[in-house]
Amino acid sequence: MRGSIPAATIARLPLYLRGLAELEPGQPTCSSDQLASSAGVNSAQVRKDLSYLDPPGVRGVGYNAAALRDLLRRELGLTRRYCVVIAGAGNLGRALTVYPGFEESGFDVVALVDSDQGKAGTTINSVVVKAIDELESIVAKESVDIGVIATPAGAAQEVADRFVGAGVRSILNFAPAVLKRPEGVEVRRVDLAGELQILAYHLSQAR
Amino acid sequence: MRGSIPAATIARLPLYLRGLAELEPGQPTCSSDQLASSAGVNSAQVRKDLSYLDPPGVRGVGYNAAALRDLLRRELGLTRRYCVVIAGAGNLGRALTVYPGFEESGFDVVALVDSDQGKAGTTINSVVVKAIDELESIVAKESVDIGVIATPAGAAQEVADRFVGAGVRSILNFAPAVLKRPEGVEVRRVDLAGELQILAYHLSQAR
Repeated sequence: MRGSIPAATIARLPLYLRGLAELEPGQPTCSSDQLASSAGVNSAQVRKDLSYLDPPGVRGVGYNAAALRDLLRRELGLTRRYCVVIAGAGNLGRALTVYPGFEESGFDVVALVDSDQGKAGTTINSVVVKAIDELESIVAKESVDIGVIATPAGAAQEVADRFVGAGVRSILNFAPAVLKRPEGVEVRRVDLAGELQILAYHLSQAR
Repeated sequence: MRGSIPAATIARLPLYLRGLAELEPGQPTCSSDQLASSAGVNSAQVRKDLSYLDPPGVRGVGYNAAALRDLLRRELGLTRRYCVVIAGAGNLGRALTVYPGFEESGFDVVALVDSDQGKAGTTINSVVVKAIDELESIVAKESVDIGVIATPAGAAQEVADRFVGAGVRSILNFAPAVLKRPEGVEVRRVDLAGELQILAYHLSQAR
C-alpha cells in the first residue's frame, strides 16, 4: 500500500479532474501549468500532489491526459456511481437536487426527504420527495452511500444520526451546525455564511 | 502591523465565532476544547490559531467569551454589514437569497440578477430579480461588496468580469468553473460536486 495522501491534496484532485475535462477535445497531453490554473495553485504544487499517485507523465511532454483522467477517477473512487439522499426539500435541497454537476460526476440523487408531510409525493426533476419517516427504508432499499443535509441547523444532528443509524458513512452537511459523529463516518461541511465571512476578512484587510 | 495569518486559520475563525454563538447564554468564558469541537480540530490547533490574534484569555480559566467574540468579529471585518448581489436566479441563486445564515452574519442580499428577462421584476423573500443589464448600476448604487455567482458554468467568467469591471473585489463562485481574475480580487469557490467526490474518495478507501 502507498502512504496516505494529505487531505489538501485529495481536495485538489477533483479540480485537476475538472481541468482535464476542460482540455481541447483530442489534446493528448496536459502540462502541470494547465492543471495548476484549473486548481488555482502553482505547477510545483501540481507535481507534488500528483507524485502521490505515480502519474503517467513524460518529462518535458506533460501528463498523458486520458491516463491521468482514469488515474484520478480511480483514485477518487469515481469508477462507480453513488446513490445520494438529500434531507430537506427547501430551496437549498431543491437546488442541490437539480444541480447538474452531481449527475455528471457520478452522483445520483435517488430521493429527497422532508419532515413536512405536505411536501411528500411532489417531484423535483423526477426525484420524488418522501416523508422523513422513510429515510431508513430508502437508505436500505437504494443502498445509499451519501447523505446530504440541507435542513435548518436545529434538525441537522437528528438527521445525521438517522443517516448514520441507517448505515450511511458519508455526509455532506450544508446546515450551519457542526455535527457529532461516530468513528468511521466522514462528514464534510459546506459553510455558506463562513465563505462570505472569509471574503469579508479579505475586504477588511484590503483597506 | 502583525504578521499575516495563515489562510487555514482564517478559514476556521468563522467556525470559532459560531462556537461562541452556541454557548449557553451568559456563559462568561469558553475553553479551547469547546471551540475545538465547533471547528472540528483539536484544542492545540485552537490555541495556535487564536495566538495570531492575541486573544483575551486567562490560563486555566479559558477565553473571555464576549471579548473573544468581539475580537473575532473585528478580525473578520464583521463590524459592518456587507452588500451582496447574487447572479443567477435559478434554484441555487434563490436558495442562497433566502439562506438565513447570510443576513444573521451581516450580509444583505440587495438584488438577484438574471439573464432571463422573464424573471425580472419577480421577488424572492422581498429581494427583487433584475435584468443582468442592470448589474453595473446596482453595484454602483448599492456599493456592492461581494458578488455571488450562481449561474451555469458557461456564464460564470463573463459575470465575474462584469462584477470586477463594476468594482466588486470579492466573489463567491458556485459555478463549476475556475475563474480568471485580476490581481487584488479575491475569489472563493464552493465546489459542490467536488465535495461529493472527496466523500467518494473516503468511501472507496474505507473498503
